[in-house]
Amino acid sequence: MTNRHLALLVGAALGLTLAAPAIGRAQTPPAKAPDPDARAKAIADVVAANHILANQGVVDGFGHVSMRDPTDPTKFLMARSVAPELVTAADVLVHDLDGNTPPPAGVKLYLERFIHAEIYRSRPDVNAIVHCHSPSLIPFGVTGVALRPLYHMSAFLAGGVPVFDIHKAAGGATDMLVRTPELGRALAKTLGTHPVALMRGHGAVVVARDIPQVVFRSVYTEQNAQLQRQAMALGPKVIYLDPDEAKKAEESLDGPLSRAWELWLRKVKQP
Amino acid sequence: MTNRHLALLVGAALGLTLAAPAIGRAQTPPAKAPDPDARAKAIADVVAANHILANQGVVDGFGHVSMRDPTDPTKFLMARSVAPELVTAADVLVHDLDGNTPPPAGVKLYLERFIHAEIYRSRPDVNAIVHCHSPSLIPFGVTGVALRPLYHMSAFLAGGVPVFDIHKAAGGATDMLVRTPELGRALAKTLGTHPVALMRGHGAVVVARDIPQVVFRSVYTEQNAQLQRQAMALGPKVIYLDPDEAKKAEESLDGPLSRAWELWLRKVKQP
Amino acid sequence: MTNRHLALLVGAALGLTLAAPAIGRAQTPPAKAPDPDARAKAIADVVAANHILANQGVVDGFGHVSMRDPTDPTKFLMARSVAPELVTAADVLVHDLDGNTPPPAGVKLYLERFIHAEIYRSRPDVNAIVHCHSPSLIPFGVTGVALRPLYHMSAFLAGGVPVFDIHKAAGGATDMLVRTPELGRALAKTLGTHPVALMRGHGAVVVARDIPQVVFRSVYTEQNAQLQRQAMALGPKVIYLDPDEAKKAEESLDGPLSRAWELWLRKVKQP
Amino acid sequence: MTNRHLALLVGAALGLTLAAPAIGRAQTPPAKAPDPDARAKAIADVVAANHILANQGVVDGFGHVSMRDPTDPTKFLMARSVAPELVTAADVLVHDLDGNTPPPAGVKLYLERFIHAEIYRSRPDVNAIVHCHSPSLIPFGVTGVALRPLYHMSAFLAGGVPVFDIHKAAGGATDMLVRTPELGRALAKTLGTHPVALMRGHGAVVVARDIPQVVFRSVYTEQNAQLQRQAMALGPKVIYLDPDEAKKAEESLDGPLSRAWELWLRKVKQP
Repeated sequence: MTNRHLALLVGAALGLTLAAPAIGRAQTPPAKAPDPDARAKAIADVVAANHILANQGVVDGFGHVSMRDPTDPTKFLMARSVAPELVTAADVLVHDLDGNTPPPAGVKLYLERFIHAEIYRSRPDVNAIVHCHSPSLIPFGVTGVALRPLYHMSAFLAGGVPVFDIHKAAGGATDMLVRTPELGRALAKTLGTHPVALMRGHGAVVVARDIPQVVFRSVYTEQNAQLQRQAMALGPKVIYLDPDEAKKAEESLDGPLSRAWELWLRKVKQP
Repeated sequence: MTNRHLALLVGAALGLTLAAPAIGRAQTPPAKAPDPDARAKAIADVVAANHILANQGVVDGFGHVSMRDPTDPTKFLMARSVAPELVTAADVLVHDLDGNTPPPAGVKLYLERFIHAEIYRSRPDVNAIVHCHSPSLIPFGVTGVALRPLYHMSAFLAGGVPVFDIHKAAGGATDMLVRTPELGRALAKTLGTHPVALMRGHGAVVVARDIPQVVFRSVYTEQNAQLQRQAMALGPKVIYLDPDEAKKAEESLDGPLSRAWELWLRKVKQP
Repeated sequence: MTNRHLALLVGAALGLTLAAPAIGRAQTPPAKAPDPDARAKAIADVVAANHILANQGVVDGFGHVSMRDPTDPTKFLMARSVAPELVTAADVLVHDLDGNTPPPAGVKLYLERFIHAEIYRSRPDVNAIVHCHSPSLIPFGVTGVALRPLYHMSAFLAGGVPVFDIHKAAGGATDMLVRTPELGRALAKTLGTHPVALMRGHGAVVVARDIPQVVFRSVYTEQNAQLQRQAMALGPKVIYLDPDEAKKAEESLDGPLSRAWELWLRKVKQP
Repeated sequence: MTNRHLALLVGAALGLTLAAPAIGRAQTPPAKAPDPDARAKAIADVVAANHILANQGVVDGFGHVSMRDPTDPTKFLMARSVAPELVTAADVLVHDLDGNTPPPAGVKLYLERFIHAEIYRSRPDVNAIVHCHSPSLIPFGVTGVALRPLYHMSAFLAGGVPVFDIHKAAGGATDMLVRTPELGRALAKTLGTHPVALMRGHGAVVVARDIPQVVFRSVYTEQNAQLQRQAMALGPKVIYLDPDEAKKAEESLDGPLSRAWELWLRKVKQP
């Protein structure tokens, strides 16, 4: 399967980057000239993010992480259907925003690739997406208790964390999976301009500018949920970051972010 | 002891598969023709399941997992009395549905083999059983708080999780162990057609179509219990999967199940 | 230091076993004839118990485990002052019941050796003792909430778990350490005939017939505390084992105990 | 970068120790004569402390630990901006109490070095400082619930644990970081003569006489917080150490401290 994947990837890289339109990047830095190494680097980042999120307890056998194709903003890179911890570069496939790219023969795609496709379509500022069943987020998604930042590491949550209820979006009972473009669009609509949305009875989606940031946000959203649950049990009144603090703190997170990424990467590298 | 076990197993495989009756498989796929490799494959699966359940925190020094003998539905395969993490193929013995198969000399059987024997007898749809002291299930078993699915991974719990009280079943105090056919039958009766039953002051029993499914259900029953306990502490009202959602979600779990199994298996394989 | 320790041990073994009185073993199986290998085996068990308790989270840098000397019931074997995880056979010293055995030059003893000395003196049925700061026990020791067995693995707790308050025992403030024979006797008195006593603001002491049993009891006392705390938070009424169940369940624990010991031992052996 | 760091360190060691003033050590033991090996030993301790605190869960990708320069009390040793688990001796830089020491080219300093600088200035008794986002401390910092010692291992908390609110200190919203000398002084003022101060919505600062003590205090402050949260949920009334007990217990901790340090050090050493 490895060779077949590589062939697909090489073909896609050669064929698609030539035609890569510049749409939808209005809010992102100007696209760099197509770089033959950019996609290989992106694939390596997707692989690392999968391993890090497993190592950090954000994903288990399920969940997926994607990155907008740096050589073509109408595509994104995501593994075939496989547990995040086991993802290798050969598993990473190019997906289009319709989620319809045919997989290599015998390869299964994540059923919920439409989460990624539709958010990339509606959020030109987003270049990396995580879908996870991060354990501490589940209780918040089913109780209506608002997830709020109680320390500076999760300041990015200050604008609110909407909850997507698929029952309402679908107008009836589903299998809880975002398995169609329509449901993907409904989730994207609930997400709006936020960095995180919870999915009732399911998990969450986290979006960011790039792979290190989406990993950082995933890890600290999980941790904030855990600490908020503890704080709410400890005392009757919890002081959250005020909006101004949160805004300033979030701006300050960019520097330290690479410090965490460097550590997390080291933890998943083979010795 | 290894040689003696192997001799027993080989003898059993040769002798019993010829006479394997077709009873009790009405609700399962039609039995395949006796396959000389089928039992060896089954034993390997039982060993893997033991290791995975230990690795995932479902069992500690105690608990056991069994599989209906693929070459004879009136038998099942389960280890001698040993900690799950230490089970090897040579430890796996053929048990009959009376729990009376004499063990090799010097070998002790699990006292509670009647849990397995009687459930296999009463549930022809069941081909794999886990008995465990899964930690997050204990509090549910002793408080009367109903375990209910709060996310799609544990949708299989939606039909309810009965609690077996051995005191009532035995009509008086016991040592809490299901150590007789009568107690096994009482537990099987409490289980009914459900996939999981809690055992008050003891643990739980989980049943399924096959080994990967029983491992999956064991892992996510434990996780649902942990998250439900947290959710109930977090907010006054927890939204569980509604019956239609749960039914649809459960049907959708079959595909992803192999993804988790592949990961779990990798985690317990020696490098 | 190794040689000096060995010399001490050899000398003690030669000298003391000849005079070993048969006192205080009334409730234990009849003493075997002095066995030149018995003490070496005992020392190995003490070392293993230290490593297992660290591996199982019952002790951290602190806590200690001892065994009555099989060749002399008026002595016990316990490490010099060192973290349990680091104990080697050369660290294990012979202590007398006054806690006054002079240590080899440059060697420090555990300040709280009087816990062990006085319990061995007052409890002839006890041949192994653990003192620990087992984390889940601390909250029970400071709240007055009774620790009670909620499942069969901790049935041995059914007779009640007394709490030792050193402030009352000493008639005033202490440094919380049982650092004198008087305080050791007061603790032994609080323990009475129980297998476990909590120590307010400090930890616990666990006693048993032998090393595997004291390790088993230590592990499952910690786990019962954790699960009881969760159960009490989950529902208004927790069903504990009734006295008859507990008695019968406790009697049944002896068989499975070796299964857990075998596993725990394997986990701490170097590969 | 290694060579450049080493050059800086060697230069600093040669140049600065000659001019090392004796100020601010009034409450500490008399300074030893400048020892050419003292700084190398100190740097090794700073590296070990970083690794231990990561291993013990007190720091993750963030947090820092410093030590007053043993050859010059107006300086302190702390890593460049890097995750604690990754710190090597070559990363440790000499900082002055203004936090203004220019870093080697291309090297970034911790933004919050002023926490350390200003506490060393105001607390001559302090020779080691940890800043961390120790998880169990966050809920105490945002609820106003007082952190109090419930067992003897954390007796040093008995004098009270003040909470630093940067919003009040700065007279308005900040990015939550102590990134100026002024904020460092405000934090030092809140800390006063205490060993620990919480930082609302951020983490904590822990100070001590030396590196082993500051690590010990960091580990057991985290653990006390975890156990206090559990105790408060378990029962309506928690008994804390009384002031006399705490005083005596704290004095007794010095001996055992080296036992924990020896263990923690072993855990982070490569085999």
